[in-house]
Amino acid sequence: MSSAIRILVVHGPNLNLLGDREPEIYGRVTLEEIDTGLRARAGAASAELEICQSNHEGVIIDVLHERREWADGILINPGGLTHTSVALRDALVAFGRPVVEVHLSNIHAREDFRRESLISEVSLGVISGFGPQSYELGLDALLHALARD
Amino acid sequence: MSSAIRILVVHGPNLNLLGDREPEIYGRVTLEEIDTGLRARAGAASAELEICQSNHEGVIIDVLHERREWADGILINPGGLTHTSVALRDALVAFGRPVVEVHLSNIHAREDFRRESLISEVSLGVISGFGPQSYELGLDALLHALARD
Amino acid sequence: MSSAIRILVVHGPNLNLLGDREPEIYGRVTLEEIDTGLRARAGAASAELEICQSNHEGVIIDVLHERREWADGILINPGGLTHTSVALRDALVAFGRPVVEVHLSNIHAREDFRRESLISEVSLGVISGFGPQSYELGLDALLHALARD
Amino acid sequence: MSSAIRILVVHGPNLNLLGDREPEIYGRVTLEEIDTGLRARAGAASAELEICQSNHEGVIIDVLHERREWADGILINPGGLTHTSVALRDALVAFGRPVVEVHLSNIHAREDFRRESLISEVSLGVISGFGPQSYELGLDALLHALARD
Amino acid sequence: MSSAIRILVVHGPNLNLLGDREPEIYGRVTLEEIDTGLRARAGAASAELEICQSNHEGVIIDVLHERREWADGILINPGGLTHTSVALRDALVAFGRPVVEVHLSNIHAREDFRRESLISEVSLGVISGFGPQSYELGLDALLHALARD
Amino acid sequence: MSSAIRILVVHGPNLNLLGDREPEIYGRVTLEEIDTGLRARAGAASAELEICQSNHEGVIIDVLHERREWADGILINPGGLTHTSVALRDALVAFGRPVVEVHLSNIHAREDFRRESLISEVSLGVISGFGPQSYELGLDALLHALARD
Amino acid sequence: MSSAIRILVVHGPNLNLLGDREPEIYGRVTLEEIDTGLRARAGAASAELEICQSNHEGVIIDVLHERREWADGILINPGGLTHTSVALRDALVAFGRPVVEVHLSNIHAREDFRRESLISEVSLGVISGFGPQSYELGLDALLHALARD
Amino acid sequence: MSSAIRILVVHGPNLNLLGDREPEIYGRVTLEEIDTGLRARAGAASAELEICQSNHEGVIIDVLHERREWADGILINPGGLTHTSVALRDALVAFGRPVVEVHLSNIHAREDFRRESLISEVSLGVISGFGPQSYELGLDALLHALARD
Amino acid sequence: MSSAIRILVVHGPNLNLLGDREPEIYGRVTLEEIDTGLRARAGAASAELEICQSNHEGVIIDVLHERREWADGILINPGGLTHTSVALRDALVAFGRPVVEVHLSNIHAREDFRRESLISEVSLGVISGFGPQSYELGLDALLHALARD
Amino acid sequence: MSSAIRILVVHGPNLNLLGDREPEIYGRVTLEEIDTGLRARAGAASAELEICQSNHEGVIIDVLHERREWADGILINPGGLTHTSVALRDALVAFGRPVVEVHLSNIHAREDFRRESLISEVSLGVISGFGPQSYELGLDALLHALARD
Amino acid sequence: MSSAIRILVVHGPNLNLLGDREPEIYGRVTLEEIDTGLRARAGAASAELEICQSNHEGVIIDVLHERREWADGILINPGGLTHTSVALRDALVAFGRPVVEVHLSNIHAREDFRRESLISEVSLGVISGFGPQSYELGLDALLHALARD
Amino acid sequence: MSSAIRILVVHGPNLNLLGDREPEIYGRVTLEEIDTGLRARAGAASAELEICQSNHEGVIIDVLHERREWADGILINPGGLTHTSVALRDALVAFGRPVVEVHLSNIHAREDFRRESLISEVSLGVISGFGPQSYELGLDALLHALARD
Repeated sequence: MSSAIRILVVHGPNLNLLGDREPEIYGRVTLEEIDTGLRARAGAASAELEICQSNHEGVIIDVLHERREWADGILINPGGLTHTSVALRDALVAFGRPVVEVHLSNIHAREDFRRESLISEVSLGVISGFGPQSYELGLDALLHALARD
Repeated sequence: MSSAIRILVVHGPNLNLLGDREPEIYGRVTLEEIDTGLRARAGAASAELEICQSNHEGVIIDVLHERREWADGILINPGGLTHTSVALRDALVAFGRPVVEVHLSNIHAREDFRRESLISEVSLGVISGFGPQSYELGLDALLHALARD
Repeated sequence: MSSAIRILVVHGPNLNLLGDREPEIYGRVTLEEIDTGLRARAGAASAELEICQSNHEGVIIDVLHERREWADGILINPGGLTHTSVALRDALVAFGRPVVEVHLSNIHAREDFRRESLISEVSLGVISGFGPQSYELGLDALLHALARD
Repeated sequence: MSSAIRILVVHGPNLNLLGDREPEIYGRVTLEEIDTGLRARAGAASAELEICQSNHEGVIIDVLHERREWADGILINPGGLTHTSVALRDALVAFGRPVVEVHLSNIHAREDFRRESLISEVSLGVISGFGPQSYELGLDALLHALARD
Repeated sequence: MSSAIRILVVHGPNLNLLGDREPEIYGRVTLEEIDTGLRARAGAASAELEICQSNHEGVIIDVLHERREWADGILINPGGLTHTSVALRDALVAFGRPVVEVHLSNIHAREDFRRESLISEVSLGVISGFGPQSYELGLDALLHALARD
Repeated sequence: MSSAIRILVVHGPNLNLLGDREPEIYGRVTLEEIDTGLRARAGAASAELEICQSNHEGVIIDVLHERREWADGILINPGGLTHTSVALRDALVAFGRPVVEVHLSNIHAREDFRRESLISEVSLGVISGFGPQSYELGLDALLHALARD
Repeated sequence: MSSAIRILVVHGPNLNLLGDREPEIYGRVTLEEIDTGLRARAGAASAELEICQSNHEGVIIDVLHERREWADGILINPGGLTHTSVALRDALVAFGRPVVEVHLSNIHAREDFRRESLISEVSLGVISGFGPQSYELGLDALLHALARD
Repeated sequence: MSSAIRILVVHGPNLNLLGDREPEIYGRVTLEEIDTGLRARAGAASAELEICQSNHEGVIIDVLHERREWADGILINPGGLTHTSVALRDALVAFGRPVVEVHLSNIHAREDFRRESLISEVSLGVISGFGPQSYELGLDALLHALARD
Repeated sequence: MSSAIRILVVHGPNLNLLGDREPEIYGRVTLEEIDTGLRARAGAASAELEICQSNHEGVIIDVLHERREWADGILINPGGLTHTSVALRDALVAFGRPVVEVHLSNIHAREDFRRESLISEVSLGVISGFGPQSYELGLDALLHALARD
Repeated sequence: MSSAIRILVVHGPNLNLLGDREPEIYGRVTLEEIDTGLRARAGAASAELEICQSNHEGVIIDVLHERREWADGILINPGGLTHTSVALRDALVAFGRPVVEVHLSNIHAREDFRRESLISEVSLGVISGFGPQSYELGLDALLHALARD
Repeated sequence: MSSAIRILVVHGPNLNLLGDREPEIYGRVTLEEIDTGLRARAGAASAELEICQSNHEGVIIDVLHERREWADGILINPGGLTHTSVALRDALVAFGRPVVEVHLSNIHAREDFRRESLISEVSLGVISGFGPQSYELGLDALLHALARD
Repeated sequence: MSSAIRILVVHGPNLNLLGDREPEIYGRVTLEEIDTGLRARAGAASAELEICQSNHEGVIIDVLHERREWADGILINPGGLTHTSVALRDALVAFGRPVVEVHLSNIHAREDFRRESLISEVSLGVISGFGPQSYELGLDALLHALARD
């Protein structure tokens, strides 16, 4: 009997404020609503999800380490860490299996410093600009990639 | 009676070679297979597709102009023009409705000159790195965005 | 009996959409109206005009080659090719007679990539920011320069 | 009856060592002394202060989130995070009310990397170089700005 | 009875030497001849001109301040200040009405430091490379823009 | 009997227009009102003020030279010269006593060229972004620093 | 019986003007004369040549695609596309067999933008500066490389 | 009786995975084995070691603060924080006694962003590229430097 | 009877403070002493000197214009204008005869912004670092160059 | 009776190891074999060759000086000096007759620092990427150029 | 009977002055003393050393070539060549066995140009900042690495 | 009885060709004539000269080492090494007494790479642009500086 695909979903700093913070950029959907949607979508694909959010780089890295045996793939919105955290990048490389990077806003159409991603180079692929749907597309992409393996 | 959503799909230079060209980067699926998949997916969503591929920047711009009244949204893989064509960018801006940019490969993990996209700044969102699935995710994203309007 | 001054007017990519495209930047005058104005102005100065617009870099270069014996001067709005086309620059240098570069918008007050012009270095002079009047000023400048020769 | 102005004071990494660390740059006044002075000054203006110091980017972001409903303004010395933390910047933008950035030393007269501040762009204003007095000036500026609202 | 359009013409540093200085770049027409031509042209359009030349940045700013109520538009050749004077730029922004920037030589085809203009970003438009005719074209452009208002 | 502290206040180019120029950036308070406020504040601290404004870099440098024996400290808003004048910087270094640099607007949140300050490196400290209050905070800071000496 | 080596010769934009255009840089030999020489040289080596010239990036890419099964190697002078065309580069990579890049002039001794070649990185080798002889040397090099395979 | 030399050993983010993570770069020795080796080596030199590993920048800074009175020197492998943490740098400067920086891999032969070290400038010296032996060499270097004091 | 060589000596901003300002960099010799020395040296060579110092860029340019017919050569220490004044550079080019640039301090061994000289490119030669002797060497060099003409 | 063409062939640092050093980049042909081939080719064209190899920049410059009267042209592979030696460049310019630069590997497809050539700007032309054949093509090019003189 | 490990020790330019040159940076130990120490350490490990010092890049490259068969590893302090010599880098790559780079001073804490090392990328590892001990640590590292092979 | 001042004069690469090489830049005076002039000038000042020229960086460094006890000062024209030799810079710093750098041509008015001098930062002063007279001025400057000591 084959086991279900297991996905670790990681929300980086400030994403807990979703729905409330800069709604003209990030929209009004809350993180809880996004998580509920992702769980439903995963359930339909018989995949298991584990979801965490933290404003602490270190906590995120700890979780990545703890779940690296468990998880088959990672869906991550690194938030502001995208552009600054070599340590997070190293942790994702250490994971060794597919990582999909998502962003709510189109990071290419914002400040210059948001154009550089330390994470994209070590991801399977990147999805940005579609609001909460970025997560859904990212989950689809990750499930598809893992199914293909 | 409401009319169907109409999507223009544009494949830029060299994508006609898909399945045959650098398969270690671009995979073995052909453009015809991708188009067939997109048509099926659009059909399921009762959307109309028009698809064109060209190696000519000018032809692509002409098509964008000709179909700008017809189309509700554009799904484009600009290929090598992504990084070099201000004229294409201007044509997409002139279109004035949602544009979704897709790439087969993860352009962030390749040569430095592929990191700069003149198109991303004027797109709704960007999807890169998922092979043929990038197109499917892009179509979903575009249909979703147009439905939301 | 001396022959009339002959001017080739070249409109680059996307200028066919004038009046319709981003009117807040480019205004509401159409390219046909501009051309009509230029013909009247040229007629008053007993100059002959030949006008072409194309979204194809290659077509523009072809025209420059075909008319290089005929034309005494070139009035060109290279559109997005201004910033990207070494081939167009080379064709203008090969022309060997005065070239006047015009832009509808003030390219210095827009995106950074619009500040670099590959064409300006090989032009007699540059006029930008005056909307359709940029063309009229450019035609005056070119006729004046050719009369001075 | 109108309520008092409420200010969150945030001291970033290493500021707990004040008075002891590199006194030739940072002086000999301790953080406790600074806090005492700020409380007195706030008291005189009938303002409430809440003060925190942390060496953890994540803790600071958490506090900013927790107190964002409570606080009317933020007085922050981001320490070394000034130059590196997009996540902190995002949290300050999410706060949505006035932020005053202060530095003990004149960051313009030190190493090159201290000249770039990710925080200044999203602050109301910046004060640097006056030692412990920078905090007092910053508190005055913030109270003044909030009174003006 | 409507009043005449009033234009302030400003010649920056070294333009007093015109006709005498580097004639291979700037030609042999003197500033007096240019001014005479501009007055005639303005007269034909029933516009009033006030003309000043100075080698002093401060004097030019003073004049801009003194005449900012009087003038409807400014025609300026900032000379070497084009590339170096933030103070002049600020004064032109403070003027608040249309500014046309002209240059005798094609500044794009000279030394690299002449390519950066602090003034162009705050001008309505820019004309460069047509010798004394640059001023005439600039006056036409300015009159046209003011008539349009 | 100890003598009063003597402060030279310097307003750079375009600050004479305050209250009138770009009020959305600089506010509606006039320079006269700022000066009156500074005199009152200085009076309360038994300090003497001498105030000058000029649009001429040279005049400002002359004043700095003339008053360098007289003044104990300088409060300066260098305006546009902040980013361009090595000569002003050299004059401030030659002064040899504390200099406080102030700006009405937050120069970090404006154009890129306003981020570089030639003056900050040679100032005791910098205050920017608090409108007219920047001057008051700057005077407090300077008086405090001079009292500490 | 072994088949002859088959070489596709591609002349990029403006090369049709050879002999006529900027002869001080490009010399007086025409493209026809160069082609005749190449055919003779190829004939002596029992190689087949197919030659095309186009000012259209798209046409060149189309030809590269059409002849990619036929050709054993490509001899290309990309003209101005050398420095700007990622799409051409991608088409050459897709070809997958040896490419030799030639230039009539020494591109290292001209404008800065001619120093960057997008094509050189994906070519077997590069020859520049020898006028029409660059082609002959390039053909020799290509025939030699193909013989070595 | 003189006291033993006391060394604080700090392992930055992701080093807890050693032996398991990217073994082709970092080798198969575990952090526990490294620590055991260091303790033995320190014991032989009658030095005391305290060792910590954390994925949290803030925790590392806290430890540096807590042990700054205790420790005579610091042996640190900052991991990904090497290139991004001004706060860590500030904490090391605040320590005020010798710091030796070590890296398992040769950071000069990897990605460009790994070439910049914020830590090296404030370290006594740097050792990189020798795998676990980097730590042993670093301990020797530190003991030697402290003995020399 | 041949006329004497005529030299204009120009001292830029802040040089009037010489002997008094930053003596550790500029020494204790006053400008008057330097001028006296130069007059003696010029007298010995039967050359006429005219000397001016100003803190005003505009005044210096005015003097250069007024004396351009009179002077055979210019000896200039542009002070802080060296690095910032295109207008001064243009005035020196307009002079059209030999210019020698001198600096008291070695500008290559100071701040980075002092390494760029807008003046050096248009000077005959440059002498820097020898204190007051730089002027004497510069006068010798200029007299020698003019004698050679 | 006309004299034979005389060519100086210069092999820069490390080329003595050819055939042995990094054969995957430089191939297995030795320098002796290359020299033998060049002598044969030169003999067939009745040209004289003088060949030297040195790992010393100074020795190469000395040889260039000693043979500058004798040689009609230089064929040089500057090896690592290509990117670093201004002195070698100056010596080649001093030679004053045609120089052809050759490289075994395609220097455009290697490390970034190999893309800058100080030599190419002062060469007649450049050939790179064809292994030992680069020398043969270079000799042909040089003989052809000298015959044309 | 297995042969001893053979190490070539190379001291680059100016290291012969050690003990005498800039002792505040490089210390007072002489090169002879360092060499004596290295020989003792090598002897204890039954390794053979050959040591050379030269101020000539060419001599060092010659030695590297001559001893490349003999040596099992190289311990090199390239001195000033570290930052400038591509030829030395190429010679070390040609050596093909482990190279350890050492520096007496911490090159990261000195002038900017000392931060770039052309050698580090091709070394096994780098040790800098420990004075003469850098050599001892480097020898240990090299012996350890060679033992591991 | 006091001993004479002793000066080491160093001519870098290619200066042996003086009078013969690029006379339009370097003039027609030979190095022998310059040396004769310097000896006469030194003799008049009762100074001893030792003069060397070499095309070898290593030889120049050796001479600097050998004569560092003997010489009181160094007059050096580093030629092309000016811009590339850290080793020469290090040797001059090791000399520890005044160094005067001279250049025949005005290096600021030539290629960009000649603007960077590694030597100027460690020289007492720099003289460039006066042809052979640069040496005479440099000798005067050096004798003056040594007399002052």
